[in-house]
Amino acid sequence: MKDIEKSARAHFKEYGMSKINRGNYFEDFCIGQKIIHPLPRTISDGDVSFYIALTGSRFALHSSNELAREMGYQRRPIDDMLMFHLTFGKSVQDISLNAIANLGYAEVSFKHPVYVGDTVSMQTEIIGLKENSNGKSGVVYVHSIGHNQEGDEVLNLKRWVMVHKKDKGVMSGINSVPVLEKVTPIDEVSIPHIRVLDTKATGGEYLFEDYEVGERLNHLEGITVDSSDHTLATKLYQNNAKVHFDDFMMKSTPMGERLMYGGHVISIARSISFNGLQNAQWICAINSGAHANPTYAGDTIYAYSEILEKIEVGRKDIGLLRIRTIGLKNIRPEDVKNPKDEDGKYIKNVVLDLDYTVVIPKNKNK
Amino acid sequence: MKDIEKSARAHFKEYGMSKINRGNYFEDFCIGQKIIHPLPRTISDGDVSFYIALTGSRFALHSSNELAREMGYQRRPIDDMLMFHLTFGKSVQDISLNAIANLGYAEVSFKHPVYVGDTVSMQTEIIGLKENSNGKSGVVYVHSIGHNQEGDEVLNLKRWVMVHKKDKGVMSGINSVPVLEKVTPIDEVSIPHIRVLDTKATGGEYLFEDYEVGERLNHLEGITVDSSDHTLATKLYQNNAKVHFDDFMMKSTPMGERLMYGGHVISIARSISFNGLQNAQWICAINSGAHANPTYAGDTIYAYSEILEKIEVGRKDIGLLRIRTIGLKNIRPEDVKNPKDEDGKYIKNVVLDLDYTVVIPKNKNK
Amino acid sequence: MKDIEKSARAHFKEYGMSKINRGNYFEDFCIGQKIIHPLPRTISDGDVSFYIALTGSRFALHSSNELAREMGYQRRPIDDMLMFHLTFGKSVQDISLNAIANLGYAEVSFKHPVYVGDTVSMQTEIIGLKENSNGKSGVVYVHSIGHNQEGDEVLNLKRWVMVHKKDKGVMSGINSVPVLEKVTPIDEVSIPHIRVLDTKATGGEYLFEDYEVGERLNHLEGITVDSSDHTLATKLYQNNAKVHFDDFMMKSTPMGERLMYGGHVISIARSISFNGLQNAQWICAINSGAHANPTYAGDTIYAYSEILEKIEVGRKDIGLLRIRTIGLKNIRPEDVKNPKDEDGKYIKNVVLDLDYTVVIPKNKNK
Repeated sequence: MKDIEKSARAHFKEYGMSKINRGNYFEDFCIGQKIIHPLPRTISDGDVSFYIALTGSRFALHSSNELAREMGYQRRPIDDMLMFHLTFGKSVQDISLNAIANLGYAEVSFKHPVYVGDTVSMQTEIIGLKENSNGKSGVVYVHSIGHNQEGDEVLNLKRWVMVHKKDKGVMSGINSVPVLEKVTPIDEVSIPHIRVLDTKATGGEYLFEDYEVGERLNHLEGITVDSSDHTLATKLYQNNAKVHFDDFMMKSTPMGERLMYGGHVISIARSISFNGLQNAQWICAINSGAHANPTYAGDTIYAYSEILEKIEVGRKDIGLLRIRTIGLKNIRPEDVKNPKDEDGKYIKNVVLDLDYTVVIPKNKNK
Repeated sequence: MKDIEKSARAHFKEYGMSKINRGNYFEDFCIGQKIIHPLPRTISDGDVSFYIALTGSRFALHSSNELAREMGYQRRPIDDMLMFHLTFGKSVQDISLNAIANLGYAEVSFKHPVYVGDTVSMQTEIIGLKENSNGKSGVVYVHSIGHNQEGDEVLNLKRWVMVHKKDKGVMSGINSVPVLEKVTPIDEVSIPHIRVLDTKATGGEYLFEDYEVGERLNHLEGITVDSSDHTLATKLYQNNAKVHFDDFMMKSTPMGERLMYGGHVISIARSISFNGLQNAQWICAINSGAHANPTYAGDTIYAYSEILEKIEVGRKDIGLLRIRTIGLKNIRPEDVKNPKDEDGKYIKNVVLDLDYTVVIPKNKNK
Repeated sequence: MKDIEKSARAHFKEYGMSKINRGNYFEDFCIGQKIIHPLPRTISDGDVSFYIALTGSRFALHSSNELAREMGYQRRPIDDMLMFHLTFGKSVQDISLNAIANLGYAEVSFKHPVYVGDTVSMQTEIIGLKENSNGKSGVVYVHSIGHNQEGDEVLNLKRWVMVHKKDKGVMSGINSVPVLEKVTPIDEVSIPHIRVLDTKATGGEYLFEDYEVGERLNHLEGITVDSSDHTLATKLYQNNAKVHFDDFMMKSTPMGERLMYGGHVISIARSISFNGLQNAQWICAINSGAHANPTYAGDTIYAYSEILEKIEVGRKDIGLLRIRTIGLKNIRPEDVKNPKDEDGKYIKNVVLDLDYTVVIPKNKNK
């Protein structure tokens, strides 16, 4: 055994791989395994400016300290999705460096506001494993929790990714899929009591009472994403999944070029949804999310939203809207009746199907 | 009437446009109308770094806290043009979302220094309306004032934009054009008394006394602007004019691609003007500005400046220079004698004709 | 003589070049000459975010205030290479605006940590001049020292650049080449005593004792650099060397397009070296550096590192590793045995040959 180790070591040394983290493969995971992700990240004003520049986001709460103070905050909190990306990015090198695809999200909740100066970090537990019948890959289900430097839980999410197997010939037959809630349970909405809401400042007059279940909003703007935009975003988040960065490698894949980080598509769609949902400044939960088709540099993202549900949380100042936002590429929302075709497959222009819940003030605040 | 409203509402609901802000058309404006623009914006160190990265600006006052302190400031003030863009950006969704062209600026003044941490916002009054004879569009003249969180006036400007009409068949015959000053009246120059000016630090030896009326400066550098550069800039400013972002839409227009935000061209030209005007670190006023031709990603911007006037303001430490800076694309300033041809039309390489007034220290400070 | 001056002045005025800094030519330098570079630069959180977004750097010390505090710092220090670029950028307009090539670096040392809020500036002494035999250019050797606002030395470097001559017919025969150390002498390592090193947080388990002289690390990731990435970086550093910015000018050169700033290539290679050298969070010295081949937008950078030397500095908590990192374009490190061919010339895919010394904690800290 010693000899084998020695020869393996010599082999690695020769090929320069002895100390290189090549990421985990399907066989490297086991249910119950816990991973502390490295690289805690302090969030700064620079990150906030980047998020605005990269996405064009205009939600007022995150743009103005003055407005945030009027709404009961000490200063402007970090946009939920920026916090998501900075925290989530930490898990890539352990979970999804060898991912073939990020298949979905569930039970994502945003528990606690995060501010400039806070440091976020993440831990993950493996909660499910399912080998694919082709023997080449498997699906890993994870439960990740993000904390700030005080130990407050700031993010809680489940996701599942398809990853390569190391040894494609050996079948383990493992098939343990966790039960996931269709809608994230919401136990608490951690935002201050809203005393004043200045809709002249937020840019939109519509509040909780104004939306109807079944209503559809075709958002007006489209945003074209160039290669530097999505790679700057992904590098800012220290997400090092190779498919987003390495064009030389991607040229020899069927995709032929770098793939846009799916999280950036969520942020762009969310930014576009501002026009129609100006007062929905907090994401409270993501119930489910799917990247229906890949997105590449040069694509123009559009979006429409449907109001799925109106939820009371026992507060007079706010209510919740459950929303489905469909992200599209290179087609206007008016031209899409249904995101899926007759066979139930996403049409090729659909890049995102996001079911999420937002907080929105009530009319009494006006 | 109720029925018509109901049917209109049903129609909007079907098309998902009921809550979407589609911007104002020519008919939506009336003289005397006042608009409070949404989205007050807190300016951060992130914005300052972005401005330097996007424009390459090297004016020393905005680069160094130490230098700013020596010059009588508490810390480095925000570059005038960065403040302009962040404040101006707010007015786009109400004034120029449906603009065909941003025709000009006048009487622009910078009244009060702005610092990191300040929150800027803007209000506008409609001061003129002129229907175009083709019946399809009209020109809207506006007077906008920007304030910081203390209520200090930080920006004051007039501009006129051509916007689409909703109903192209109905002529109103409105023709009320305001009288605009050719040169912005300057009542006060709000900069500290300059005790020390270290020209070794500012990078240029020339001061008020060294410039002559009629003198021309062919600035040395050229800066090529790529698509991510100008779209990151425009999104940072939360300026959502569709022509700058939506390449899919622009492909079906005569332009064929996204148009660069004219304000970015001003900033690039101003950045280039550093070499020759290193000590002109404050813009005091913009007397008039015209975007002579459109600019697209890939264009290389050059600039030259002419000294139009030397102005005394009763101070021993500073004087003013009125300057005309011509922004060019894809031609060096040495190769342009006159920005206009024999018929008085701008030649195709001219992208900016900016008449502005800067503060510059006098030799006694050296 | 007065008449000649007058006519020269008129000439300059006509061509607008009287006040333009055209940079220095070979003849403008003399040995012993001292230059105070303009534009002291305050480093902000915005710069830190930019550095992460531009390079994807993941070294933990620079990402987290919490981690930095555990390691004995007050807060996260600035990445050495970010400080290098911001300081170095100042010298370009005096030294290398007319450079044909940045030939090499030697004796680069990083003496003192720099933090957000610090203001850096630079001074240079000319220490050597060597006219090229073709009569068209010469090599200028400089010794530059960077300071923070307290006068602490933060950077010390020697470099040599090839610059154009003004008068190509006149030979001076000057040939005074300074003696440069092959390895930067290290008198002091200015980092706090490391009490705790949490390798779960830094992302890598390997420490001083784990590396062997002769060991090679083929770093896993590749990063494609687009045009906006490298031009944003170079503008952020206020480095105004025309070859990096002016595509219109570069189109008429043999290169045909903008050249990437070599410093950006160093930063990208350093960022890639994270995977394998996660705990080498400080650069202590650059012993020598060469930009072996030019890099252009669209190139994908890879890197491998060789451990050249292990150095004790009389401390129980840390040791030094002398490392050679080879930066590659469009070829994976596994496919490169030797960066040079049989004739001792760099193969065309090698873009960087960097010999540098890093600080790395010892196992006792674990």
